[in-house]
Amino acid sequence: MILTVTLNTALDVTYRVPRLLPHASHRVSDVAERPGGKGLNVARVLAALGHEVTATGFAGGRTGAVVRDLLAAFPGVTDALVPCAGTTRRTVAVVDAASGDTTQFNEPGPLITAPEWSAFLTRYDALLAGAEAVALCGSLPPGVPVGAYAVLVRAARAAGVPVLLDTGGEALRRGVAARPEVIKPNATELAELTGSRDPLPATRDARRRGAHAVVTSLGPGGLLAATPDGTWQAAPPRPLAGNPTGAGDSAVAGLLSALTQGLDWPSRLTRAVALSAATVLAPVAGEFDRGAYEELRLGVRVTDRSAS
Amino acid sequence: MILTVTLNTALDVTYRVPRLLPHASHRVSDVAERPGGKGLNVARVLAALGHEVTATGFAGGRTGAVVRDLLAAFPGVTDALVPCAGTTRRTVAVVDAASGDTTQFNEPGPLITAPEWSAFLTRYDALLAGAEAVALCGSLPPGVPVGAYAVLVRAARAAGVPVLLDTGGEALRRGVAARPEVIKPNATELAELTGSRDPLPATRDARRRGAHAVVTSLGPGGLLAATPDGTWQAAPPRPLAGNPTGAGDSAVAGLLSALTQGLDWPSRLTRAVALSAATVLAPVAGEFDRGAYEELRLGVRVTDRSAS
Repeated sequence: MILTVTLNTALDVTYRVPRLLPHASHRVSDVAERPGGKGLNVARVLAALGHEVTATGFAGGRTGAVVRDLLAAFPGVTDALVPCAGTTRRTVAVVDAASGDTTQFNEPGPLITAPEWSAFLTRYDALLAGAEAVALCGSLPPGVPVGAYAVLVRAARAAGVPVLLDTGGEALRRGVAARPEVIKPNATELAELTGSRDPLPATRDARRRGAHAVVTSLGPGGLLAATPDGTWQAAPPRPLAGNPTGAGDSAVAGLLSALTQGLDWPSRLTRAVALSAATVLAPVAGEFDRGAYEELRLGVRVTDRSAS
Repeated sequence: MILTVTLNTALDVTYRVPRLLPHASHRVSDVAERPGGKGLNVARVLAALGHEVTATGFAGGRTGAVVRDLLAAFPGVTDALVPCAGTTRRTVAVVDAASGDTTQFNEPGPLITAPEWSAFLTRYDALLAGAEAVALCGSLPPGVPVGAYAVLVRAARAAGVPVLLDTGGEALRRGVAARPEVIKPNATELAELTGSRDPLPATRDARRRGAHAVVTSLGPGGLLAATPDGTWQAAPPRPLAGNPTGAGDSAVAGLLSALTQGLDWPSRLTRAVALSAATVLAPVAGEFDRGAYEELRLGVRVTDRSAS
């Protein structure tokens, strides 16, 4: 089983409007709702790839109940979310049909109490016993200690479970010091962590801060990985037009999927880039196009950057 | 008991953001939820004035359940909403804290089936038996016949219950032909109905189309009423700065409150204008400031426009 942790789960609501005009009233032509938060996205992609997945984190209030109901509709994902008294946040993405651009509104997460955090830690330790790998994903809701990911990384390492950390800011800084197997920053998160915007030296610098491997997402340029086995860049076969929402989460799912199957780094990166690209191409944000995935896997270019 | 009808109820969600930037991501600093739809707003104000109020219309799905729960927290409003299989809509109002301006997103309402509409008509007829007055408010959800308000006006008149209609477009055009006691258009709705943007002749024209009395809201200018007893304009004592959300619903509540107490037209208009102004001044959208209401009542200027 692969375990995904989403401390700040969300109900992702998408509104389609003909055109967004500030300070006007809009008739929403189309409403879509999905369980959200990076870790739940990762769990859905892993399940679609055929993995057994367990999703934990917090869910509370009416919105939490909706998230759990929607999650139950995804076969292959076991719901191990821990209840909290606060209400799970919504995110509202308003898609302007004219330009395709999205305007996003993110509610604050629920306040997690100390007893709730303790209950989560107990649940997490129990789940680790059956996990082949664990993904720690996304922001921390209010009340969770800023060093939370360091605690979760250490517990996974103590249990002998490889751990991937995908977060930013201070949560990443603290988490990386606990020596996770993999971190997957984007360019902004990497720059926050290292102070450098030059991807290759910054990716190597991030490794020196504690992560065994650093996989930096370069957006359309693919992934750059500094690992114990070498440094590689993996890129999609051609430029892709589409919606990048969820592409990073699909990359995390690809890395974990290949890791649990014992594949080497070039194969892990190939799977991650192909899944990420197939997510950009999918008509629904955050889904991936299976046909495109199978085709793109054959075309991903992996370059050895060890000597760069 | 005063009966309010809200066929297209809503959960009104308000997001406060520091500044609205199209195509950017926003952290919402404050989330508020209220039961919405014009008729539910009218019901709340009437209850706050001490009236016994029953609210009917449709509520369905998870959002309908939230609306009913929130409504239960308002003392004095009896919930007589009729269940529907579709999901009650949400409205999301994004308030830009820098400018105070609001950007509004309105989900489509639930599709009402023919059996649900029949069930509503049965409930409405039963409720009319105990009603002193009825307010028919807001838009029609999909599936409800466009002549719905004409049917509801006729049923009220057959039961001897005075009826106020507050809607727009074709629903207003059809409804007014059934001869309601009062309609309360705003300038836009009045222009749609009559083709004229000149308030006084348009208000009189609307009367000739069937309504016994027409009360046109002039925004900051107050109310203009053409009635069987004469024509009056009622204006607040001074220009008011604030949030006009819900001001029209408060005016409807004021008109009905005074009507059921047997007050004459100038007194009805005074109450409506004072409540409306006290709603603009309230810190929370759609609430009214009770102290301001008591003070403003003494200052509303009513002008006889019969000879104009």
